[in-house]
Amino acid sequence: MNHEPSTIKRMSAEIICVGTELLLGEILNSNVQFLARELAKLGIPHYYESVVGDNIGRVQKVLEMASKRSEIIIFTGGLGPTPDDLTTEAIADFWQTSLAERQEVVADIALKFAKRGRKMTPSNRKQALLPVGAEILPNPTGTAPGMIWQPREGLTILTFPGVPSEMERMWEETAIPYLKSQGWGKEIIYSRMLRFRGIGESALAEKVTALLELKNPTVAPYASLGEVRVRVAAKAKTEKEAIALIDPVAQKIIDRAGLDYFGSDNETLSSVVGELLKKRGETLSVAESCTGGGLGEMLTRVAGSSAYFQGGVIAYHNQVKISLLGVKPEDLAQAGAVSATVAKQMALGIKEKLKTSWGLSITGIAGPGGGTGSKPVGLVYLGLAAPDGQVESFEELLGEERERETIRYISACNALDLLRRQLLN
Amino acid sequence: MNHEPSTIKRMSAEIICVGTELLLGEILNSNVQFLARELAKLGIPHYYESVVGDNIGRVQKVLEMASKRSEIIIFTGGLGPTPDDLTTEAIADFWQTSLAERQEVVADIALKFAKRGRKMTPSNRKQALLPVGAEILPNPTGTAPGMIWQPREGLTILTFPGVPSEMERMWEETAIPYLKSQGWGKEIIYSRMLRFRGIGESALAEKVTALLELKNPTVAPYASLGEVRVRVAAKAKTEKEAIALIDPVAQKIIDRAGLDYFGSDNETLSSVVGELLKKRGETLSVAESCTGGGLGEMLTRVAGSSAYFQGGVIAYHNQVKISLLGVKPEDLAQAGAVSATVAKQMALGIKEKLKTSWGLSITGIAGPGGGTGSKPVGLVYLGLAAPDGQVESFEELLGEERERETIRYISACNALDLLRRQLLN
Repeated sequence: MNHEPSTIKRMSAEIICVGTELLLGEILNSNVQFLARELAKLGIPHYYESVVGDNIGRVQKVLEMASKRSEIIIFTGGLGPTPDDLTTEAIADFWQTSLAERQEVVADIALKFAKRGRKMTPSNRKQALLPVGAEILPNPTGTAPGMIWQPREGLTILTFPGVPSEMERMWEETAIPYLKSQGWGKEIIYSRMLRFRGIGESALAEKVTALLELKNPTVAPYASLGEVRVRVAAKAKTEKEAIALIDPVAQKIIDRAGLDYFGSDNETLSSVVGELLKKRGETLSVAESCTGGGLGEMLTRVAGSSAYFQGGVIAYHNQVKISLLGVKPEDLAQAGAVSATVAKQMALGIKEKLKTSWGLSITGIAGPGGGTGSKPVGLVYLGLAAPDGQVESFEELLGEERERETIRYISACNALDLLRRQLLN
Repeated sequence: MNHEPSTIKRMSAEIICVGTELLLGEILNSNVQFLARELAKLGIPHYYESVVGDNIGRVQKVLEMASKRSEIIIFTGGLGPTPDDLTTEAIADFWQTSLAERQEVVADIALKFAKRGRKMTPSNRKQALLPVGAEILPNPTGTAPGMIWQPREGLTILTFPGVPSEMERMWEETAIPYLKSQGWGKEIIYSRMLRFRGIGESALAEKVTALLELKNPTVAPYASLGEVRVRVAAKAKTEKEAIALIDPVAQKIIDRAGLDYFGSDNETLSSVVGELLKKRGETLSVAESCTGGGLGEMLTRVAGSSAYFQGGVIAYHNQVKISLLGVKPEDLAQAGAVSATVAKQMALGIKEKLKTSWGLSITGIAGPGGGTGSKPVGLVYLGLAAPDGQVESFEELLGEERERETIRYISACNALDLLRRQLLN
């Protein structure tokens, strides 16, 4: 679908990713997805993305083409200290501009090395070389700064390192304010992502069929692992106007989904469960077998989770289930470690041991080995001990064909979702 | 780094992905990674990848450029039945070739619809239109076939739908045999990834400077979060020949890196630590505060980790450190939860409680809140209790500017690396 009238010439951006490792398929290029979304949010059209290897001649060929058709060129990758990092050099050479060492960058790199107790190497000085006339695009966490440079009127080049966390922070702290100062972001695309669990993409889509035809906001469903998302996106002059367009549509979708809707945007199952626990002044502990700590890890991704999460036991070995959780040896022997009985005892055991309001447990067969005819890979039991001492267990068949990591991940998500639904009831 | 002498003109391929949804960042483009790896396996060099929206003019601009510099052009996306699917049309129009409806494709689509109990819609007939002279590239599972077409001598175009599972099957069943019949796959590119920890990219590169100049195999270092990798890639007639080229170079790099080298290819810190423990017949337990279960989760990603990993305690709240790990309340009060003293008591506590050979602990300030002048965000103590009962602690300053998730991830990796080095000593 065309998102702009093709007859009108408009400013547009273009993304160029530099790195032979990308061409070899060794790395999944997540940077372009991040940048594409960010450009959309600022209302900056972009029609082309390119990937090119670590080769000056080829980088310059792509740059030549890009400079003819786009007004903003965003580079990622190739800013490191080694000889194959040549993005800056290629750009400067293309406009026959010499590189100059920036003392503030040298000082910054030296400081970062010192802080980590390491010595700066001569090759790192290379990262301080920027074309004369370019502004430094500071990198708060890594040693490779980027640049903002206008090699000629009407063309702006921004460079970023390839490490996603560094690139993203530099984008947010410096590139967005810069682009806004240049007048971008006046017509914005603002979107809200609604998140659902326990319903399939097509079933959800059928519940909101009519809304899928809307033009502003648009409504688009996506499926991802164990979760369905619906993006509601509006074009408007301000965020406020966009939100006014989005709110009633989002509310309709949420109403029709009922309990299957769990949160929006950056909300996660962990953060939603955390908020519910905080509101009720309740606490939680976990007992994990097959997830090996993954449930606790998810819960503690939320800053401030210590307000309700006390901790737990990773009971990977049966002996730990007995010694730390009070699971009965005879039940382990008879029902087996992967059973409703053991899941319940684990949940109750951790709740009592850590004196929390809730106890949540997982025991299952993550594979690839360990499955039997009656207990296949993907069989998982969740246990939930409630504040009143009631314990329930839930059986899940996640599918023998699934990967170990997928089974572990979905198990932990399902445990969180189980607690979420109980907290809402 | 150049992977081929730039003076010699060689056949090469290029990938063009068509889809506005890619430019909007709604989809992570995993097709390019798949195709990039597959091309490397066949020994087909490729230097450029492009993404372009659903717009005939822009698709043709990218095609024009690609047809000048590459001999094989691979398209993905834009083969569907809706008006914005226009890849085939754009290609045919570029070479002023008319489209003809292929009866065998119409029949195939009708059959697929019938099998699913649906009726073929008129718009699906569009998918049967291919340029006169093009061969059908059959799609066994979906309704959109691709094509293999030589619009002029020395240039081959292959088109695939954007759905990864359909594209991959078409690639394997038809494209690979076709490319092999054209003489590709006789020379392959085989690579090994060496993994390092505790040394920076530039420091490692300086240790192996001379090797970075090699032509076959090539040696290229990459930095990623908390890890440096070096790819050693060789071109040869067979995998065996490639390995013979790679082995001595890889060994040199490994020798120079010493203990900082931890594994190759799919080996992880967890799998390496696991192998070392298994060899020694020893067991491990963990006590985690700020990582909240992340260390256990990492260890149990390895299938079969139950052979050495017993479990652990997530001691997020101080009370859990006291009740389950035997940390002394007075030490918690005086030294604080984030201290060498507490890290040691946690490690020894879990080792004794679970009766394992080793006990490994983490306590730190992951942020964003909770830091003070003397104990900033990023301060982490690791504790390691050895089989002989000796306990050591290690202080780490991971940097206040880092994200919570980064600090937690690096802490867990550092703990594993600490144990790895002890096991190797």
